[in-house]
Amino acid sequence: MPYIYGIHTSAQLDRLSSLLEEINGINPFQSTRLGNLTKAVDNESFVKLPLLTKRELMEDQINNPPFGSNLTYPLDYYSHYHQTSGTTGEPLRVLDTPTTWDWWGRCWLEVLQAAGVTKSDRIFFAFSFAPFIGFWSAYHAVSMLGAMAISGSGANSARRLEMIEATEATVLLSTPTYALHLAEIASQRGIDLTQSTITKTIHAGELGASIPMTRQKIEQAWGARALDHAGATEVGAFGIGDTKDCDLYVNEKEFIAEVIDSNSFMPIESGSTGELVITNLGRGAWPIIRYRTGDLVNPIRIPSGPMEGKLLLKGGILGRVDDMVTIRGVNIYPSTLENIIRSIIGLCEFRIIVSTFAEMDEIGIEIEGDQTTAQAVAQSISDEIGIRAKVRPIEKGTLPRWESKAQRFSDQRARRSNTKTP
Amino acid sequence: MPYIYGIHTSAQLDRLSSLLEEINGINPFQSTRLGNLTKAVDNESFVKLPLLTKRELMEDQINNPPFGSNLTYPLDYYSHYHQTSGTTGEPLRVLDTPTTWDWWGRCWLEVLQAAGVTKSDRIFFAFSFAPFIGFWSAYHAVSMLGAMAISGSGANSARRLEMIEATEATVLLSTPTYALHLAEIASQRGIDLTQSTITKTIHAGELGASIPMTRQKIEQAWGARALDHAGATEVGAFGIGDTKDCDLYVNEKEFIAEVIDSNSFMPIESGSTGELVITNLGRGAWPIIRYRTGDLVNPIRIPSGPMEGKLLLKGGILGRVDDMVTIRGVNIYPSTLENIIRSIIGLCEFRIIVSTFAEMDEIGIEIEGDQTTAQAVAQSISDEIGIRAKVRPIEKGTLPRWESKAQRFSDQRARRSNTKTP
Repeated sequence: MPYIYGIHTSAQLDRLSSLLEEINGINPFQSTRLGNLTKAVDNESFVKLPLLTKRELMEDQINNPPFGSNLTYPLDYYSHYHQTSGTTGEPLRVLDTPTTWDWWGRCWLEVLQAAGVTKSDRIFFAFSFAPFIGFWSAYHAVSMLGAMAISGSGANSARRLEMIEATEATVLLSTPTYALHLAEIASQRGIDLTQSTITKTIHAGELGASIPMTRQKIEQAWGARALDHAGATEVGAFGIGDTKDCDLYVNEKEFIAEVIDSNSFMPIESGSTGELVITNLGRGAWPIIRYRTGDLVNPIRIPSGPMEGKLLLKGGILGRVDDMVTIRGVNIYPSTLENIIRSIIGLCEFRIIVSTFAEMDEIGIEIEGDQTTAQAVAQSISDEIGIRAKVRPIEKGTLPRWESKAQRFSDQRARRSNTKTP
Repeated sequence: MPYIYGIHTSAQLDRLSSLLEEINGINPFQSTRLGNLTKAVDNESFVKLPLLTKRELMEDQINNPPFGSNLTYPLDYYSHYHQTSGTTGEPLRVLDTPTTWDWWGRCWLEVLQAAGVTKSDRIFFAFSFAPFIGFWSAYHAVSMLGAMAISGSGANSARRLEMIEATEATVLLSTPTYALHLAEIASQRGIDLTQSTITKTIHAGELGASIPMTRQKIEQAWGARALDHAGATEVGAFGIGDTKDCDLYVNEKEFIAEVIDSNSFMPIESGSTGELVITNLGRGAWPIIRYRTGDLVNPIRIPSGPMEGKLLLKGGILGRVDDMVTIRGVNIYPSTLENIIRSIIGLCEFRIIVSTFAEMDEIGIEIEGDQTTAQAVAQSISDEIGIRAKVRPIEKGTLPRWESKAQRFSDQRARRSNTKTP
């Protein structure tokens, strides 16, 4: 099987060459790390450039406050400020210029257009417009498209449901978790969302819309087509949801994708699982070259048909490198567990806690439901992946609900060595 | 003294003429109300057009859901949805197209530029990005200017202070009340905001930045220049803050201003107080013609000097027609009371309740502070406007804090007849 490694098209090579010319010698961060960049305009040199981790970006920002040194232009060229959610520590700050902000918009536009969104649509943002980049950039794309943008910020779930009804919104943008939460509130209030004007839901911010059972629950609850998207603050909106399956296409016009083994850093074979490494080609003001996303993917290149030649991430983002759990030699992703749990509990909430007991790794799961449901979940996990999980039923409404990135998975073991960045 | 009434410049006449041509016969709301609009291209016909009230817009929206009939184009031309805060009932929904959204941006750009904001500035939005139009349109203007926009949505006050420090923001956009609240939190945490990077604060959303003592408190707390702005969802950003005094200039490039007596609807003399009536000239997709803003103003036209010919609203927006209190024949505005109260209590919170006791109107004021302070407030009100107010001291931190439109004034008497719309 071929490797997914390095530059794939001559268009990518041209874009890369322009990018390197733009930043070479004037972006302090890139110059210090990589030296003379314009040398790296063929694939052989490109794949020899060092990989970049989030930790390096964070350290650069600490050493060069407040915005780090990954800046190609003087600070007053930059117009848009965003930051990561900071769930794993201090937020990382990223800056865009009007030019790279339009690039973000164009990347998101690909996602919207793949989903069939047109300027006649009315897009409801179930989002707080906090400085996370994801939905802000989607909002910019909606403006570029000329579709109607409706901010659902500053409102609770009940009010948001009222706004969707009042404005006859046709597209919902939210995290997968929040789409399920809105459905839960609607159900409590006797609202049948399958009768609403929403025909599409587009998701970002966390895994979920590519987990088959989660996607199915969203589609059933809303009577709408659910679509995934993948992106990251550091990188851009690189993944375009497939309308038929739980897969993502990589936007290879704007990104170079590589997939590596997180331990050896060697390229993996197409069809295996590895860590996605991204180079963005249109963000010269804040460029990212060979960035380890931490996302686990299973890449294949479509051999034929209308999508021939496209790079597909089978099942979307499968999990995070850091979240992979090895239990008695078996690699398990939280998303695999979510898929099994959702097939039993539907819209209800759950939480997974991995801990060590008597030197053995243990998976504990809390689900909102009764003892029978808990037993069914444990049985299903045992049947499908051969692992015994402790499943505990808890009262409905007691687990936290999430509007942005959900945190349902907690690894309470000592940190494993394979989570270290090189 | 001359009247502030009707079209003032030939440029306004040209703009009005284009606007009427754009909407004539195709905007159902305007056609039904006003008939053949293109006839109204001279001042004589213009000032005979009927005045428009918010109630009419609301009723039109109820009769023609969800967006009413004040639409010049088919719905899928509209790209931006906003709504009023709905403090006095259901929210009014307003729509803009990309063209009129840029018009909003240009109107706000005048405010920013008058304040001396440049593309080197970093503008911190202490705002929730709920669907209120004010700061969304300011955000668009900041993008047009190319200055750095920083969303402070989804964060509490302490976190916002950290973000301002971390990003070295230079301009704060907030309600006047919230600027004072942030200063209160900073003071509790031992942060000296006069040492912060903020050099300007720009305000919207409520009266305050034109109330001399409130403005002075904001300027003292932040060590920065505070500037006012005035606008309304229905109308646009029509008022540009004066950098030296607590006044506003009307943007007569984009608006026609008239000032009338709220009872007789006759124009008032320059230098008297009356209700501001606005026609916007650049929002053809959702036009407003002779709209009663409900804002009380004291207009004068600058006779000489660098601002010669400009229309000045002395003291900014003085109050709301509905909020004027008549106590034993004396007209009192909440803003007058706020100015007196702030001169005594500084940054603390207060609340004014007007009620009827034994058929007499009564002003009750709660202030966060001690008995001595309360007595000083009562004395000062008595000295300055000859009215006896009941001032009650209450514990610090017990009154509500406001991020958007503050509601410190409550009229609990039966509604007066002069608040009726024609």
